[in-house]
Amino acid sequence: MQNTALKLNARPVGLPTKDIFDLVSEELPMLEEGQVLIKTHMLSIDPAMRGWMNEGRSYIRPVRIGETMRALGAGQVVATKSEILALGDWVSGTTGVQQYAILPDTDCVKLDTTKLPVEAYLGTLGMSGLTAYFGLLDTGQPKAGETVLVSGAAGAVGAVAGQIAKIKGCRVVGIAGGPEKCNYVVNSLGFDACVDYKSASFKKDLKEALPAGIDVFYDNVGGEILDLALVVINFKARIVICGAISQYNATTPWGPKNYLSLLVNRARMEGIVVFDNAPNYKSAVQEMAGWIAEGKLTTKAYVVEAPLADFNDVLLKLFKSENTGKLIMKLVE
Amino acid sequence: MQNTALKLNARPVGLPTKDIFDLVSEELPMLEEGQVLIKTHMLSIDPAMRGWMNEGRSYIRPVRIGETMRALGAGQVVATKSEILALGDWVSGTTGVQQYAILPDTDCVKLDTTKLPVEAYLGTLGMSGLTAYFGLLDTGQPKAGETVLVSGAAGAVGAVAGQIAKIKGCRVVGIAGGPEKCNYVVNSLGFDACVDYKSASFKKDLKEALPAGIDVFYDNVGGEILDLALVVINFKARIVICGAISQYNATTPWGPKNYLSLLVNRARMEGIVVFDNAPNYKSAVQEMAGWIAEGKLTTKAYVVEAPLADFNDVLLKLFKSENTGKLIMKLVE
Repeated sequence: MQNTALKLNARPVGLPTKDIFDLVSEELPMLEEGQVLIKTHMLSIDPAMRGWMNEGRSYIRPVRIGETMRALGAGQVVATKSEILALGDWVSGTTGVQQYAILPDTDCVKLDTTKLPVEAYLGTLGMSGLTAYFGLLDTGQPKAGETVLVSGAAGAVGAVAGQIAKIKGCRVVGIAGGPEKCNYVVNSLGFDACVDYKSASFKKDLKEALPAGIDVFYDNVGGEILDLALVVINFKARIVICGAISQYNATTPWGPKNYLSLLVNRARMEGIVVFDNAPNYKSAVQEMAGWIAEGKLTTKAYVVEAPLADFNDVLLKLFKSENTGKLIMKLVE
Repeated sequence: MQNTALKLNARPVGLPTKDIFDLVSEELPMLEEGQVLIKTHMLSIDPAMRGWMNEGRSYIRPVRIGETMRALGAGQVVATKSEILALGDWVSGTTGVQQYAILPDTDCVKLDTTKLPVEAYLGTLGMSGLTAYFGLLDTGQPKAGETVLVSGAAGAVGAVAGQIAKIKGCRVVGIAGGPEKCNYVVNSLGFDACVDYKSASFKKDLKEALPAGIDVFYDNVGGEILDLALVVINFKARIVICGAISQYNATTPWGPKNYLSLLVNRARMEGIVVFDNAPNYKSAVQEMAGWIAEGKLTTKAYVVEAPLADFNDVLLKLFKSENTGKLIMKLVE
């Protein structure tokens, strides 16, 4: 049986370009005991993908040159040598950017599509949501009444982090790009305020939206926004370094000039990677599913239908911040 | 009775210059109940002093223009309206850069000069030593067998931080300027290794001295050294931001370009200020006095004799890193 897969053929410099990928047709191997063949329906498109394309030590090994581009995805089991997964089952896993994926059943999560749409399992209840959950609660440690600032507030992780901070009784301020997104963050996600970083009055607006300073900053963006936040942090503030989408394609590295505010305020800046929390995924998903059922947490996703060959175009939407909510690529032939 | 005091008359830009201070002769007020008159013998000269001269929010209010320059000092009681301090008692406190200081007895610490030299109470058992103690133990949380890197290792704080890390069973690597200081750090302070940041092979030497990476980085220096350390930190490393002597006189702010290593390694960078630990000073001093008695902790200080008028020259020794160990100014007429 034939598979079509998107292979990484070169390492990007700056923004990835279409020509660093090759669409390759290849014969699938036979299934082994315990494996399933999955037809990929949806891919989770994440800023972290940009990092996976780089050479060098990171929290996960780089995608090798000639290897299928790594991606989390969801699809249906179309052939099975598993005793726990049956034909037609919906599953999520590290499918990669390809039409079909062969995975051990132990690496798949079975999805209940009768309760929630498939994309919810890649977004709010997937890696994005879990990243927000553990990063905010374990590392940010927000207390009721505190002020939580979230950058990338209209993005997959930021939206969930801010909503959980609201559930915990915090005053939550978002940062997003453009009036439409800011409107979404306040009116659909329920943040107390959202500041538009594209506005000419951004710096002033940000200060005004934070009259009581910042106790927790959940940062997905980095760059100037991190420096501005550092000036406003409170005594014993916690800065969660979840990502730095403003920097992933930068060819000149940038550093937070105001980092000595950590000293002045005895504050902390700490990096997180969701994978460390794997033993607690299940209980987190249960708690978040409860919040979804209560209407406190949205599963809205930004689904783009495209063929495999257009993967890079869809990925670039992240860096152009065209998406509102979780960016999902729905594969079409 | 006449006093001579050094007043700040302008805010410095870059390195402080002599002309921003005025030596003023003034009449001392009468002592009030509970106060003592102290003849200042020694001043603790600290990098933090540079920050106190700046305008703007910090962990302590700036020295005002026209005000006596702030300093911790030690001296003898030469007049007393206190029931707890007698004539001739040795005390330490915030004397300021002046010949005589009037302080409430409750703001003074009585010193036992029969056991240790006066300078030990301004260095190892003073703010420098306490900063090292709480910063390393509470924030750095070193475990036996871990690797601890200390910048400014020959300085007042670094020397104590490294020695305590040795006491706790860590492998301790210092960074200092020049072969003489490095020799002192290894042979007198007992660090396992010390790397010379002035050497042409510094980057290579630093990597080689850290074959097992860095678990705790106690940073007094900032700048390029912090960026180099960020590249070598281990999973869940703790970076203690105690100071940034390389930056205090910088007119262009600098930021750690490699801060995303915090994310990759789920590491933490946290600022400390010793004053937050005031309730625990006493038990810390007791524990450190025990280590001094056991010969595990040195009280060596770098004492410079100079008249009040030369305060700025003595302060600049810090930023030229001329001192080995705690810099103390011993006042002479």
